[in-house]
Amino acid sequence: MDGSDHLAHERSKAQFDVEKMKIVWAGSLYAFQVSNRIARLVAGDPAFTKENRAVLSRRELFKNTLRKAAHAWKRITELGLSEEEASWLRFYVDELSYAYVHWGMFVPAIKGSGTEDQQNKWLPLATNMQIIGTYAQTELGHGSNVRGLETTANFDPKTDEFIIHSPTLTSSKWWPGGLGKIATHAVVYARLITDGQDHGVHGFIVQLRSLDDHLPLPGITVGDIGMKFGSGAFNSIDNGFVRFDHVHIPRNQMLMRVSQVTREGKYVHSIVPRQLVYGAMVYVRQIIVVDASIALSRAVCIAARYSAVRRQFGSENHEISGTGVETQVIDYKTQQSRLFPLLASAYAFRFVGEWLKWLYTDLTQKLEANDFSTLPEAHACTAGLKSLTTSAAADGIEECRKLCGGHGYLTSSGLPELYAVFVPACTYEGDNIVLLLQVARFLMKTISKLPSGGNYKLSGATAYIGHMEHYLIKYSCNVQKAEDWLKPNTILEAFEARAIRMCFACAQNLTKFADQSEGFSELSTDLVEAAIAHCQLIVVSKFIKKLQQNIEGNGVKQQLETLCYLYALHLIHKNSGDFLSTGSLNPKQASLANDQLRSLYAKVRPNVIGLVDAFNYSDHFLGSVLGCYDGNVYPKLYEEACKDPLNDSVVADAYGEYIQPLLNQQLLNARL
Amino acid sequence: MDGSDHLAHERSKAQFDVEKMKIVWAGSLYAFQVSNRIARLVAGDPAFTKENRAVLSRRELFKNTLRKAAHAWKRITELGLSEEEASWLRFYVDELSYAYVHWGMFVPAIKGSGTEDQQNKWLPLATNMQIIGTYAQTELGHGSNVRGLETTANFDPKTDEFIIHSPTLTSSKWWPGGLGKIATHAVVYARLITDGQDHGVHGFIVQLRSLDDHLPLPGITVGDIGMKFGSGAFNSIDNGFVRFDHVHIPRNQMLMRVSQVTREGKYVHSIVPRQLVYGAMVYVRQIIVVDASIALSRAVCIAARYSAVRRQFGSENHEISGTGVETQVIDYKTQQSRLFPLLASAYAFRFVGEWLKWLYTDLTQKLEANDFSTLPEAHACTAGLKSLTTSAAADGIEECRKLCGGHGYLTSSGLPELYAVFVPACTYEGDNIVLLLQVARFLMKTISKLPSGGNYKLSGATAYIGHMEHYLIKYSCNVQKAEDWLKPNTILEAFEARAIRMCFACAQNLTKFADQSEGFSELSTDLVEAAIAHCQLIVVSKFIKKLQQNIEGNGVKQQLETLCYLYALHLIHKNSGDFLSTGSLNPKQASLANDQLRSLYAKVRPNVIGLVDAFNYSDHFLGSVLGCYDGNVYPKLYEEACKDPLNDSVVADAYGEYIQPLLNQQLLNARL
Repeated sequence: MDGSDHLAHERSKAQFDVEKMKIVWAGSLYAFQVSNRIARLVAGDPAFTKENRAVLSRRELFKNTLRKAAHAWKRITELGLSEEEASWLRFYVDELSYAYVHWGMFVPAIKGSGTEDQQNKWLPLATNMQIIGTYAQTELGHGSNVRGLETTANFDPKTDEFIIHSPTLTSSKWWPGGLGKIATHAVVYARLITDGQDHGVHGFIVQLRSLDDHLPLPGITVGDIGMKFGSGAFNSIDNGFVRFDHVHIPRNQMLMRVSQVTREGKYVHSIVPRQLVYGAMVYVRQIIVVDASIALSRAVCIAARYSAVRRQFGSENHEISGTGVETQVIDYKTQQSRLFPLLASAYAFRFVGEWLKWLYTDLTQKLEANDFSTLPEAHACTAGLKSLTTSAAADGIEECRKLCGGHGYLTSSGLPELYAVFVPACTYEGDNIVLLLQVARFLMKTISKLPSGGNYKLSGATAYIGHMEHYLIKYSCNVQKAEDWLKPNTILEAFEARAIRMCFACAQNLTKFADQSEGFSELSTDLVEAAIAHCQLIVVSKFIKKLQQNIEGNGVKQQLETLCYLYALHLIHKNSGDFLSTGSLNPKQASLANDQLRSLYAKVRPNVIGLVDAFNYSDHFLGSVLGCYDGNVYPKLYEEACKDPLNDSVVADAYGEYIQPLLNQQLLNARL
Repeated sequence: MDGSDHLAHERSKAQFDVEKMKIVWAGSLYAFQVSNRIARLVAGDPAFTKENRAVLSRRELFKNTLRKAAHAWKRITELGLSEEEASWLRFYVDELSYAYVHWGMFVPAIKGSGTEDQQNKWLPLATNMQIIGTYAQTELGHGSNVRGLETTANFDPKTDEFIIHSPTLTSSKWWPGGLGKIATHAVVYARLITDGQDHGVHGFIVQLRSLDDHLPLPGITVGDIGMKFGSGAFNSIDNGFVRFDHVHIPRNQMLMRVSQVTREGKYVHSIVPRQLVYGAMVYVRQIIVVDASIALSRAVCIAARYSAVRRQFGSENHEISGTGVETQVIDYKTQQSRLFPLLASAYAFRFVGEWLKWLYTDLTQKLEANDFSTLPEAHACTAGLKSLTTSAAADGIEECRKLCGGHGYLTSSGLPELYAVFVPACTYEGDNIVLLLQVARFLMKTISKLPSGGNYKLSGATAYIGHMEHYLIKYSCNVQKAEDWLKPNTILEAFEARAIRMCFACAQNLTKFADQSEGFSELSTDLVEAAIAHCQLIVVSKFIKKLQQNIEGNGVKQQLETLCYLYALHLIHKNSGDFLSTGSLNPKQASLANDQLRSLYAKVRPNVIGLVDAFNYSDHFLGSVLGCYDGNVYPKLYEEACKDPLNDSVVADAYGEYIQPLLNQQLLNARL
């Protein structure tokens, strides 16, 4: 490599303080410093190299991941890293292993659902990794419908034990990460049955493998569920299945914080409210929103840098000779109109994720004070935003890959794996469409409770619904020229009008059905669209809210303002059917939004490399030759290609067997 | 497996003659019979098993593909298959190898661009596979801009040879399939230079490897470009790079049908028109449209069958007990509204592909008679439809995967690989956005030639643009109730109005720019949207045209009518912003289209399994446990999982190295 920065010219064009933007992106100076320090630690450790990941066979890949996970834990222990630092380290290692499920799901499940006694017993074992845990909820035949799980936990009063059993093939636990080959324990969700009575699904700590020789315990059949999307991605982790054949566990391994089974086999509730379970869902989903912003920003960083390096076509007079300098593809409006909204989305999702973190903290405090009033709205918010951001991020990553042309299809671009590893977020922790239907149900309930006519005070992200009368009757958008679109209130009102009108139309159409659940089912597509409108409004409004904060750094706030408008106006353009059909805008105003959008692209253009540099991603973390910091793309592409195992020999392995006889017309006699 | 048909009940509901629909899908009884016979031949041959494809390392996968390709050629020779039958055989083997590029690009390039002498020399060698060829156009630094290719072919009058040379790293040929390890020859595109003068890009036959020992010839550096998206997909083929260091080839290896270099080094044109080159592009792209319909239909077949087997949630009274039968997910409107439009799209693309085939035949006849009048329109049509159908098919495959929930993410679902193998069609043979800009340019040119005011006679798919006055001034949609949307003319007019109004708005906005090319660049996003509107109109109109043919079979035509309306109305709903902003529809009419769409879903529902059975795909070809014909999904998922190499041992390979020391807290002393 030549050591020079091929993107230096682009960097010199930035009209803002990139270092200060890094802090805004990270959330705080402290967050920036911790993450930056750990990122360097990981990037500088050759044990964490990502080399060759794509060409390994499943077994080799899995083994290599176990090596990295062990090395990570060794470093965490050696360096005495805090839990936060350890979590950053796993993040930057960037290779899925049992450790993610152990720390991200098993430990929180015990913390959230275990009694104090249970926590005292299990948490030290888990946090020292003397046991490795997984979270076994989903079954072969049951995903979204948790209440339909088939695994049973039958209380046997004679032995004071639960008998965990898989009555059918479809009741096999299926998907838990780390389950297939590694986990020694699992929190297993099963129908609790006492004295023949079914009390619904509860969690149980079940040991799966011997701590001596790692063999599955009697009655337990466990294995890996096989290859998944992509060459690396989730194939580095052993998503597994397990079947239980009357496995006995002690009574005190039921997670009993909320409800218990007594020695006599009586099912009783504790004073701890059930609603805490929903608090846990809010927690997990707000993390996924942050994940979405990270995944999308990685893809955008790669596509932006490569688009600034890649040149294609040029002014007519250069074309024939081939000697003239061609145009950077990032200068094409078609490239900008696809890439820049994704850049803006990455920032938008980052800030709405920040807000959700606040929402979760606020909710937790309220729940602990037995105040459940904001729970339904917080639940709907996180469910909807998890759905919105993961769908948009997944699509956005693929769009970024396509924006890199043919080379984006190479694994060395980093983009195929980024997609493969992120896209299941659209399905896990709540299928995105199922979640939107939950949001819609909440919205319909909110509207149905409003007294007819007049305004009504609602709190949180649904406050605007209280202004129904204003939006249904009085509101009309006052945009008359393109610049009018650069007013936060104008944007906010348009989004509020559109959302409320779509919701109200659904609510009215629902009244035409005698059977509400039939109506809800029949209109579910419209309801999903209304829920999306509501969620987009939340993202826009939280971006605007962010801009009302004190933001340091030369030009930083101006850049964020541009991105905020860009995000909002691109949504208006993309969903103009909604805005027009509800009369929230007229065609002229929609067209002006589109004109303003074009001006915003021009504003972003000089700052685009600065805006992706602000993500502060190391080349190791990005894992992309197209997105490398110095932009020296072509030599790196060539170097990566040469590493493919097919290039280990000049003549292909199987030449003598399958090519030579063919070329020599001797195939008919060959044994194949 | 239990041998029963879990989808028998669904099949019994079909309201049409599925066997007759198979013939409509295949295009003719003859096409059905040939393809069906070869499909069975392949499915029944254990050498063509797809087992384990995903878990192989790159080298093993590649070797296995070479084995299959050799076996395929052996069977083709043994059975004396015709070229058409051989091509069906390769199609059903369904694993990319050098053979696809050899037959699909190398042979046609010689046929299309070689003189009669050249064809007499090279075609027998190629068709006997005594040589294996590839097609080397794209370079590391040049894809879309073919005129910017850097490789040179300098004529040396002293030796009567061309000197093929790669002057830069970016001039390395990059991407050609089969090039990396297998091809012995290539058609190489390079700038022809005679006496210092650059005549632009021409094709040359260059031998790459020795026919004795398969070693690269002197001056040639060749290799594989590395792993690509997915675990199998294009990794079975050796997309390669090659660099030329002053490689000499005889003068008669320039493909000289259209232009020649004489012994004296004079560059001359033959009487064969250059336009024939565009004819070849039309040929390749119409094939890709057919590919899109096939790829999408495979995904739809899998998702439809699995959605009929999968059950989730149920009536309230069953939920708690877990014993009641849950609802088939295909009965949810949200599932229908995502799946059924894709089913309709598969049929729509099939028929527009059929029409393009006719268009190509018609064009060829005209070109041979020196009539070039329809070429620009035919070129724009195929470019636009290639773009439209491949983008929609790629997105549709991913949507089908998501419709299968978590299990769709398993490689055994067949869907991840189907996506990974198809999606490059959005980029190769013309980047989809670049192609739409070409369509837009053609449309703007067409409009600019219209005399102002009045109607004008235009031919082909742009005929409607001749009715500009009608659509700009007089037209208004006359839909007043949902059923009004079930009239082909009403639909057609709405699509024509929308397309023409979008095109006209672009044309008007273009006039505001002094510099046309600046205007084109500035408005390129709008132009792309106008081009999409034009292309969607073509697909709709050709579907309608298909229905005017005589179509045999009980209920077959009715089903196709339903699908045609469904396709059109879902486009109206999805693009309602276009229809509303151009005033082609009012909000009420758009809403009625949506209502009608819901009714159509209900009409399709009982026929959906019949409609995917009509694709006549064998379980071997589908390669999906979720899409298997008998619907016995769960035992098959379990069986496939057990085959993963990770399950070869009960305790993981690396337990002793990386797990035991961790659990025993002995990691700090371990060597990792």
